[in-house]
Amino acid sequence: MKKTDYTDEDRKFMQLVIKLAKKGQGKVSPNPMVGCVIVKNGKILSTGYHKYFGGPHAEVEALKKCKNPKDATMYVNLEPCCHYNKKTPPCVPQIINSGIKKVVIATKDPNPAVGGKGIRQLKVKGVKCKVSVMEKEAKKLNETYIKYIKTKTPFVILKMAYSLDGKTKTESGDSKWLSSEKSRETVHQLRSRTDAILVGINTVLKDNPKLTSHGKGKNPVRVILDTGLKIPFSTNVLNGKSKTIIATSINSNRVKKEKLKKMGIGIIELPLKNNFLDIKKLLVKLGKMSISSLIVEGGETVAKSFLKEKLVDKIMFFICPKIINSTEYVKNAADVKNISVEKIEEDFLFEGYLNV
Amino acid sequence: MKKTDYTDEDRKFMQLVIKLAKKGQGKVSPNPMVGCVIVKNGKILSTGYHKYFGGPHAEVEALKKCKNPKDATMYVNLEPCCHYNKKTPPCVPQIINSGIKKVVIATKDPNPAVGGKGIRQLKVKGVKCKVSVMEKEAKKLNETYIKYIKTKTPFVILKMAYSLDGKTKTESGDSKWLSSEKSRETVHQLRSRTDAILVGINTVLKDNPKLTSHGKGKNPVRVILDTGLKIPFSTNVLNGKSKTIIATSINSNRVKKEKLKKMGIGIIELPLKNNFLDIKKLLVKLGKMSISSLIVEGGETVAKSFLKEKLVDKIMFFICPKIINSTEYVKNAADVKNISVEKIEEDFLFEGYLNV
Repeated sequence: MKKTDYTDEDRKFMQLVIKLAKKGQGKVSPNPMVGCVIVKNGKILSTGYHKYFGGPHAEVEALKKCKNPKDATMYVNLEPCCHYNKKTPPCVPQIINSGIKKVVIATKDPNPAVGGKGIRQLKVKGVKCKVSVMEKEAKKLNETYIKYIKTKTPFVILKMAYSLDGKTKTESGDSKWLSSEKSRETVHQLRSRTDAILVGINTVLKDNPKLTSHGKGKNPVRVILDTGLKIPFSTNVLNGKSKTIIATSINSNRVKKEKLKKMGIGIIELPLKNNFLDIKKLLVKLGKMSISSLIVEGGETVAKSFLKEKLVDKIMFFICPKIINSTEYVKNAADVKNISVEKIEEDFLFEGYLNV
Repeated sequence: MKKTDYTDEDRKFMQLVIKLAKKGQGKVSPNPMVGCVIVKNGKILSTGYHKYFGGPHAEVEALKKCKNPKDATMYVNLEPCCHYNKKTPPCVPQIINSGIKKVVIATKDPNPAVGGKGIRQLKVKGVKCKVSVMEKEAKKLNETYIKYIKTKTPFVILKMAYSLDGKTKTESGDSKWLSSEKSRETVHQLRSRTDAILVGINTVLKDNPKLTSHGKGKNPVRVILDTGLKIPFSTNVLNGKSKTIIATSINSNRVKKEKLKKMGIGIIELPLKNNFLDIKKLLVKLGKMSISSLIVEGGETVAKSFLKEKLVDKIMFFICPKIINSTEYVKNAADVKNISVEKIEEDFLFEGYLNV
């Protein structure tokens, strides 16, 4: 559908739908975020959104609050469901029974159990359907769900911080702090709406991170890649503040594995592939645990493996206005001032000043 | 001066002055770019700019074309000159004699021979002066001149191209082409308005570059850092298409030096400092040759030395939407799609997608 095929009114209501859907962020996973608005003669009769995993769908929420939905138009960002065998009954029959005349949908459901069937059932019963209104925005909203429902493996976000000269740390290994406080806060927020976070054992040994959302919301499941099971019992990621899973070699210390299991730590045993844990298999296992999104936060070896195996879906790179070059500590790195950024074709030209 | 201290009219005319000044870009070095507008009752009487090194100053150009400058206001981006001992007579006496009532100036002349004296002389003779109108823009326009006139060494621009994951080349050394065609064109344009360009001998040996402006304007002087005088006689930078200077160790092959000199190649002999040519001394020597601006274009060893010695004034970093990671050739690097950039405090957050 071309952009011009939908009206300003369509756009206005669908924007509201997306705004409503976002209220479920971090609470509905691995379900999609869905919002719904019921409209008659340009007036909003009721609204709804999917509030928590297992809770009523957005369409049902909106219908429940609507006194007279007969001949009204329903706006919803995802194709209404028509399948059974899940926590809540399907929405399509309820929409048909309500007397709704028309459904405006942003994107079809990529779930093979729906995948256009919802729309077909509505049409058969005489409910008009308009699809692809603000589809791009709707797809971005549910990028995690779309990947997960299709592949049963999590949507992988690689998060890195680089200096302007492309360094993640100094030669002596210092990386505190390349990115600004606000950037780190952004990462904590991201963690609160992501199912799991992954780092390698070297990051655990070196930085002893907590890998929580630092009070910004729910904590993600912590996944540690630790081939040789080197993790110390006293480390922060074993503090029980949130669930931790250690991915380790089939051959690593069996006694330590049992001890960790008794502490409530999850253990995933993996075969090796090129001397590195088989992370493709790990993603399949995490997917089976309903982990639909995963942030990979480093270090460099881990990032390299995910990139090499083409397992990264999205990058989030913080580029920080410093030149590390051969500086020993990040805090002594040269600050680049008065930075301007210009887009040149697909490149970004950073201009800035030193010694000012 | 606060921004509010100048009027919309001041801003309008000073913008025109800066636009005129820019017409001299690449032609007036090591002089500053200067534009001038003469205005009476809000109407432009005449305009001028400094067209070429040794040519008349902008103020004189504008006065020459102005029929009746009496009681008019002159706008000029740099304080008018008052000193002798240079190619053209000073502007201040000519402004005073013309009957101009007021001079609006963007920035004082950092040249110690002027440095406020021009303004003082105007005031003594009853010409009003308003200084610091659009000072920031005017200083940026003449950043090269300002550095050079104060230090007698060139303004150094470090130009680099990085992949999003901070690489300048693949592990096997391939770097063709990280940046887009348009970005490379931007660099050629930059070369045409810069006095000199510098690379290390390894870049010459590996890429055999021409280091010209590729038809975009005048060619910069080519400066090659070549400690051991390894340069082959057949290489492109010795093609005579533009001036080339080789900076080499005092101890390198004397016979080869003489042969190169006979070919018209400049030879600068330098002592070593930490096994690297003393580039601080090189900048002093280049400054003496009226080279007021220098682009350092790599490779990495050269860039590192300039950064380490804190000799870089400005960076121009092209960040290209590719992930090189462990790819062997740049052309096989993963493209990052649908990139968005958001400023978070002083950091830049790049988001983008792989496998789409």
